[in-house]
Amino acid sequence: MRRRENRAMKNLDRYQQIVRKELENLKLPQQPANLYDPIRYFLTLGGKRLRPVLTLLGAELFTDEYEKAASASMAVELFHNFTLVHDDIMDNAPLRRGQQTVHEKWNRDIAILSGDALLIEAYKLFSNYEPEVTARLLVTFNEMALEVCEGQQMDLDFEDRNDVTIEEYIEMIRKKTAVLLGCSLKLGGIVAGCSKDEADHLYNFGVNLGIAFQLQDDILDTFGEEGQTGKQVGGDILANKKTYLLLKAMSDANEEQKNKIRILFSETDSQKKIQEMKTMFDELDTYQKATSKMNDFHDRAIQNLDDLDIPEVRKEAMRSLADFLLQREY
Amino acid sequence: MRRRENRAMKNLDRYQQIVRKELENLKLPQQPANLYDPIRYFLTLGGKRLRPVLTLLGAELFTDEYEKAASASMAVELFHNFTLVHDDIMDNAPLRRGQQTVHEKWNRDIAILSGDALLIEAYKLFSNYEPEVTARLLVTFNEMALEVCEGQQMDLDFEDRNDVTIEEYIEMIRKKTAVLLGCSLKLGGIVAGCSKDEADHLYNFGVNLGIAFQLQDDILDTFGEEGQTGKQVGGDILANKKTYLLLKAMSDANEEQKNKIRILFSETDSQKKIQEMKTMFDELDTYQKATSKMNDFHDRAIQNLDDLDIPEVRKEAMRSLADFLLQREY
Repeated sequence: MRRRENRAMKNLDRYQQIVRKELENLKLPQQPANLYDPIRYFLTLGGKRLRPVLTLLGAELFTDEYEKAASASMAVELFHNFTLVHDDIMDNAPLRRGQQTVHEKWNRDIAILSGDALLIEAYKLFSNYEPEVTARLLVTFNEMALEVCEGQQMDLDFEDRNDVTIEEYIEMIRKKTAVLLGCSLKLGGIVAGCSKDEADHLYNFGVNLGIAFQLQDDILDTFGEEGQTGKQVGGDILANKKTYLLLKAMSDANEEQKNKIRILFSETDSQKKIQEMKTMFDELDTYQKATSKMNDFHDRAIQNLDDLDIPEVRKEAMRSLADFLLQREY
Repeated sequence: MRRRENRAMKNLDRYQQIVRKELENLKLPQQPANLYDPIRYFLTLGGKRLRPVLTLLGAELFTDEYEKAASASMAVELFHNFTLVHDDIMDNAPLRRGQQTVHEKWNRDIAILSGDALLIEAYKLFSNYEPEVTARLLVTFNEMALEVCEGQQMDLDFEDRNDVTIEEYIEMIRKKTAVLLGCSLKLGGIVAGCSKDEADHLYNFGVNLGIAFQLQDDILDTFGEEGQTGKQVGGDILANKKTYLLLKAMSDANEEQKNKIRILFSETDSQKKIQEMKTMFDELDTYQKATSKMNDFHDRAIQNLDDLDIPEVRKEAMRSLADFLLQREY
């Protein structure tokens, strides 16, 4: 396992460098400064650049000339940042990666407009390919982009609902988070000229991995160790956030347990609230059930990878990436 | 002149019917309702559908099968509505065409997100063409879309500036309003398989016509008659809006006149404010100068049309459309 991880780490490093170089070479106009400065600022806030790396990896499954996928990889990175700029407005978030969000540093209108421009800049990059490739990229990208909007809207809707089902929750994280990972990989495959079937396996691999990754995120927020997630442990519990854990616990709970959980929603002692909710989760076996669900999706992802008809050696990087993502060491 | 107008009117009616039918046939998902209901709502608020009509007209210059341009015409209409939904947030506008704006009827977050989805839905429509056509449409559309964002940002920036030049103002209205008209026409030409040169003439015709149209808008707001514009005459003056008239007057005024104008900015008696500003405009010959500028751009547009190497009979609808737009009867 350790060997695999090291190899993945090395691989990712190489891809991240390509992404970083591409980002530096991205040509944005100087004027109007209030439109393009926020974009430049936001793109330098960093991040793992996971999505563009996936695009390069997706291309490398089928070709050694995976750098041809650089423009497509930028498109998914710009798209991701477009969603972050607009989501930050909706969340009234003051900070992103420890730095001021665009609507904080500038204002709401500039955040809306520079987000719009980021999305359009993403689309521009598809014109760097031959028409046949551009057309395939566009279809896949559009489908993903709409689903991400739908996922974000579902997430907003869930805040006001008390009857969210587990199926709806999985559908929400699939759309809001996972399809972008699937799309990132698939765009790489398309640039490399893969078949429709191969593209579908690749897409499903990314989607299932993405859902597993998001479920892990829910689990770690409550059961992780400080420092492992970079977020405050128990933050979801304190915010009464409708995570997989909470929805699963509520669905498994008897009336008495449900009442206990509902009472905890208004508990003001943070430590007590976290502790008692975790006790409820223990009573209901929620950690095990969530982990098992996560592993389900991980298994599905691995099956999608197995279904890909390419030499095993080419799949290595993808397998170790999956291991990595689901251990949160990367 | 009257005959030409009638013919144009009849033509436009025919095109508008196609647009209306296409809008009705536009398939949008039902769920999440909070994402797609606002889009459906906003698209039924009506409007002249000028831009999609231009796309159909642009195609008909080169082919009798201009209905092939229907998808492209929807793309520009959806794009236009995307800009309106987001601009309404920025303007804190409660009403659009006498009905509640999306952020009023729902909320800010839903307006941001359904605006985003409208933009993506616009892009989806380009996949209804052959890859070579899709690729050409995409390049033209992206260039326009970014310029529209730039124009909107310039407009926002101008509110806080007191040194806006006339050249900057023309550049702002070119980007914010005119390039979308040029693009609408050009997309129609592209679908009809026109050459690059023809596409450029068509684009320039639309852009110059658009600038003339916007200048006319400025003129009518101050010098038009009640009922001619559908807006309150003198509204721009009351809002101290930096229109072509005001910028031209300020640039032509001597120090004494400039001071008079600046004092008028804080005049609270509406009738007096409008009357005295109009007196200043008269002193400075601003109406004549603005009209002459508008005619300049109209002449350029007609020149672009003359430069198009197609039979004169095919240009008739375009000429009468230009007459129409610049008389505000349509």
